[in-house]
Amino acid sequence: MKIVQKNLSQLAKLKTDMFGKDFLLTWEKTDAEIRALALVAETLSELHRAKKSLRVFDAGLAISIFRDNSTRTRFSFASAANALGLGLSDLDEQKSQIAHGEMVRETANMISFMAEVIGIRDDMFLGEGNTYMREVAAAVQEGFDQGVLHQRPTLVNLQCDIDHPTQSMADLVALKTHFGSLEALRGKKIAMSWAYSPSYGKPLSVPQGIIALMTRFGMDVTLAHPEGYGLIPEVVALARHNAKKSGGEFAVASSMEDAFRGADVVYPKSWAPFSVMQRRTPLLRQGDRDGLKALEQECLANNAKFKNWECDEAKMKLTRGGKALYMHCLPADISGVSCAQGEVAASVFERYRLATYREASFKPFVIAAMILMARVKNYPAALRRLVKA
Amino acid sequence: MKIVQKNLSQLAKLKTDMFGKDFLLTWEKTDAEIRALALVAETLSELHRAKKSLRVFDAGLAISIFRDNSTRTRFSFASAANALGLGLSDLDEQKSQIAHGEMVRETANMISFMAEVIGIRDDMFLGEGNTYMREVAAAVQEGFDQGVLHQRPTLVNLQCDIDHPTQSMADLVALKTHFGSLEALRGKKIAMSWAYSPSYGKPLSVPQGIIALMTRFGMDVTLAHPEGYGLIPEVVALARHNAKKSGGEFAVASSMEDAFRGADVVYPKSWAPFSVMQRRTPLLRQGDRDGLKALEQECLANNAKFKNWECDEAKMKLTRGGKALYMHCLPADISGVSCAQGEVAASVFERYRLATYREASFKPFVIAAMILMARVKNYPAALRRLVKA
Amino acid sequence: MKIVQKNLSQLAKLKTDMFGKDFLLTWEKTDAEIRALALVAETLSELHRAKKSLRVFDAGLAISIFRDNSTRTRFSFASAANALGLGLSDLDEQKSQIAHGEMVRETANMISFMAEVIGIRDDMFLGEGNTYMREVAAAVQEGFDQGVLHQRPTLVNLQCDIDHPTQSMADLVALKTHFGSLEALRGKKIAMSWAYSPSYGKPLSVPQGIIALMTRFGMDVTLAHPEGYGLIPEVVALARHNAKKSGGEFAVASSMEDAFRGADVVYPKSWAPFSVMQRRTPLLRQGDRDGLKALEQECLANNAKFKNWECDEAKMKLTRGGKALYMHCLPADISGVSCAQGEVAASVFERYRLATYREASFKPFVIAAMILMARVKNYPAALRRLVKA
Repeated sequence: MKIVQKNLSQLAKLKTDMFGKDFLLTWEKTDAEIRALALVAETLSELHRAKKSLRVFDAGLAISIFRDNSTRTRFSFASAANALGLGLSDLDEQKSQIAHGEMVRETANMISFMAEVIGIRDDMFLGEGNTYMREVAAAVQEGFDQGVLHQRPTLVNLQCDIDHPTQSMADLVALKTHFGSLEALRGKKIAMSWAYSPSYGKPLSVPQGIIALMTRFGMDVTLAHPEGYGLIPEVVALARHNAKKSGGEFAVASSMEDAFRGADVVYPKSWAPFSVMQRRTPLLRQGDRDGLKALEQECLANNAKFKNWECDEAKMKLTRGGKALYMHCLPADISGVSCAQGEVAASVFERYRLATYREASFKPFVIAAMILMARVKNYPAALRRLVKA
Repeated sequence: MKIVQKNLSQLAKLKTDMFGKDFLLTWEKTDAEIRALALVAETLSELHRAKKSLRVFDAGLAISIFRDNSTRTRFSFASAANALGLGLSDLDEQKSQIAHGEMVRETANMISFMAEVIGIRDDMFLGEGNTYMREVAAAVQEGFDQGVLHQRPTLVNLQCDIDHPTQSMADLVALKTHFGSLEALRGKKIAMSWAYSPSYGKPLSVPQGIIALMTRFGMDVTLAHPEGYGLIPEVVALARHNAKKSGGEFAVASSMEDAFRGADVVYPKSWAPFSVMQRRTPLLRQGDRDGLKALEQECLANNAKFKNWECDEAKMKLTRGGKALYMHCLPADISGVSCAQGEVAASVFERYRLATYREASFKPFVIAAMILMARVKNYPAALRRLVKA
Repeated sequence: MKIVQKNLSQLAKLKTDMFGKDFLLTWEKTDAEIRALALVAETLSELHRAKKSLRVFDAGLAISIFRDNSTRTRFSFASAANALGLGLSDLDEQKSQIAHGEMVRETANMISFMAEVIGIRDDMFLGEGNTYMREVAAAVQEGFDQGVLHQRPTLVNLQCDIDHPTQSMADLVALKTHFGSLEALRGKKIAMSWAYSPSYGKPLSVPQGIIALMTRFGMDVTLAHPEGYGLIPEVVALARHNAKKSGGEFAVASSMEDAFRGADVVYPKSWAPFSVMQRRTPLLRQGDRDGLKALEQECLANNAKFKNWECDEAKMKLTRGGKALYMHCLPADISGVSCAQGEVAASVFERYRLATYREASFKPFVIAAMILMARVKNYPAALRRLVKA
């Protein structure tokens, strides 16, 4: 519990203003807030390891809205809610039934009468997921302002088209744990690289979340992808800006090998080309199955040109001492295991398999920290109460 | 919290006998019980607004059985259960799998070993929903009497073919709040009117619940509908009887305009003709898709003759001072918003949109009150404990 | 509460080692452990009847994985989890999506960060269900050993291809209650008999669980089935071994009449032939619908030769005094009620209907006892705390 005491004293020095605020994009939070969030998540994890109760609520609902499949984020959210004392209620909307506009305003209020937090995953439609979250936020704000709701629930982005903050924050805590401190990340090279996968249409939010967040801590971030697989330009510009501000570096490479050379950390992961996602959105909306199939074929054929973008032993040898930390948000497409050929060679993945599980293990505590800091004004006092209990 | 103290002292004067009793129809409850229920619901709402815990159970299950789709009632029930300290368990039966008769007796007991309450929505089959609820009630009564169950769970009707008591009670609390007291409802005119909708097969339970309940408080209730869209005759007779007894009035009009003239409150809402629901039940039971489609076509064609039954600005002008309160159980079919032409003009709905949300906001507290009064013998004492905590 | 005090003093004499251990097969537990489990389940049931709280957890998740449909076991698990203070989270995997091997290791850890217990039903694939449970167990053990998980959740077998321990333990408690004590079971004859059903593919786990468990308490167990409907040979051998060791008897009969003669208890229930289940497994895995349909036809045709294997009044007359206790895990195929002709005559079932409900009523408490004994080292002290509270 020494680490908990150290965290609590560090926390006391950080000025944060997260009470009552949604968590939609990491870049809407100050550096101090990100640091505090990491400390709170680590503290909750340590308390849980020490079999301390994390319960701060007597009752209340955590609502989840998953507009895309999810196992691990679903369970992370359920775990965080349960640990804090909230009941989970899932809004099982048919993807088409609840559209944007009028219905969102109404539904958002109807589910929120006793809600403390609403977690949303909406990552299938480029230009829409984050927008939808803000519509829900505006709706419950109006409901609260107009006396419909006794309290305004907090929104947590469980992955949208732009960012995946619970993932990137869990990754940041994993890196902090691996290297010892956030300060130790300064100058460390991380390669966020596209990798080949026999599927298509994976969201851009993970690589975007990583380059936008890691550049804030002085890391040397290299984004690598084949031509045509670029990310949302605004997020790339943001990463560049962040690196400049933090004294880090940001570069774009055109081969996995270039990115891996001398890297301390590698994050090879597939995603769909931005332009394909743009064409996919109207097809999805129109339910145009033939169009989607044709686009998938075209995209898979294009992907297949880059099968050598695999994180194999040869490429791992290029990293610092051949020993870079391999990261992945899971599940990975593992060559010869979960697919014929994919993002990562089986031997590489197996060496880091448990490290990726540990990386994932921070996510429930990151979500719990997001809820705690948004719902409990004096959250350091709440943490101290949990320690003493 | 002044209002809470006032409610509690009013409550002390009311004689109720709801402990261990199901809530299936409002007209099975005495006037004192209805008044007490409204007071308890308001009190719970005020306590929640004041961030007081509503928890009265340490553990226990609230079981829901939804034999028809639902978002808002589902979340209202989940919210009420969670606030009181119960866990939610949904029986996800396939509509056809669990039939009447033998299986109901068994299933009702199998799910009830630790259940405090069972909430059921079964509103698709005229003549069946309420009957099903009574079968479940008889089954758990037998289970309790015969030593299968340690406690007999309470049933709450979350909408059947006859009544929708959680809705009508929430509406009553909304009216009480709007006009200041139940006494203030005396002489106020409410127009419960059929309205055009481009869908068919909507249950009769909302209009039936409204005319049966509001006539008990001296209101001047006018039911309006096109020829052939009458409600269950027994419920219409009951409304007439209630009005006579309470010193209110009950009339049936044949145009929305007639009903709206001078009204203090309007409730324009679509429903299916009684005779169509009667023909629909055997078709649904037999799974006769062609028959259902033909009936739908016939019914929609008939509906279409009454497109002018829309709650528009012109008709609103006919109400008292042009300012009647517009009510709806939601979701409404809003012309030009959720459909081409529907129950209500967009400008009318938008003006009352937040009022309808507030109307809906009472439902979780009404359900919580129903559970509390059925499960806690000395519920006024329980409320006082919540106030003090 | 006298019975509770008696149970607690008996419990004090039993040496058990179940803390942190999975419950996968009854025959992996010592006689003392089985006796203790029965005592704990009965004690929890008595406490619940006396309206005492069974809550021992402040928070924590109970995860369920149902790879086959279930209503009563699902609600029993939910009831047990809720009563102890755990939140329920169901892993709703598509049957095909999460295969064996690599993915199990990962998923098992991803869902377990805050899990106290994982309950699994996987009974469709002969040779696979129990194996899957052990894969999950190995995965969470590795996760705990390697610092991924702060605690290793306990696995509870909610029915596999080999055993159905929550059912057989509930049946044992029911028999103990019926005859007064476990000692009173000595010499009592139980007929575990195959029965005709117009369905096919029912698992073997119930009859296997019954013959393996009841032979440990000196009962005279007769297994009866038509030729070709044998159980897994290893389990039959185990039953024979258990009977020898306990001073009971075990025999295999080839007619329901032979088995019923002089029986104190009859358990007539359908199951699929072992050989059919063996052929079915690869067909299910390959998703070979035509193959499955052909196998079903063949199997139903074979079943139909044994329609006289019905528990009717004539066969019941053969039992001791014509008054044997009829048992069933439910739902039963009742002739003329839930099917044209099935496992049991309507008049027989109706006479014992409430007895079968009471039999089932022990299951939530058996599951709660399994969780309590695996998660709370000094569970007798925990029980004493519940008594005093």
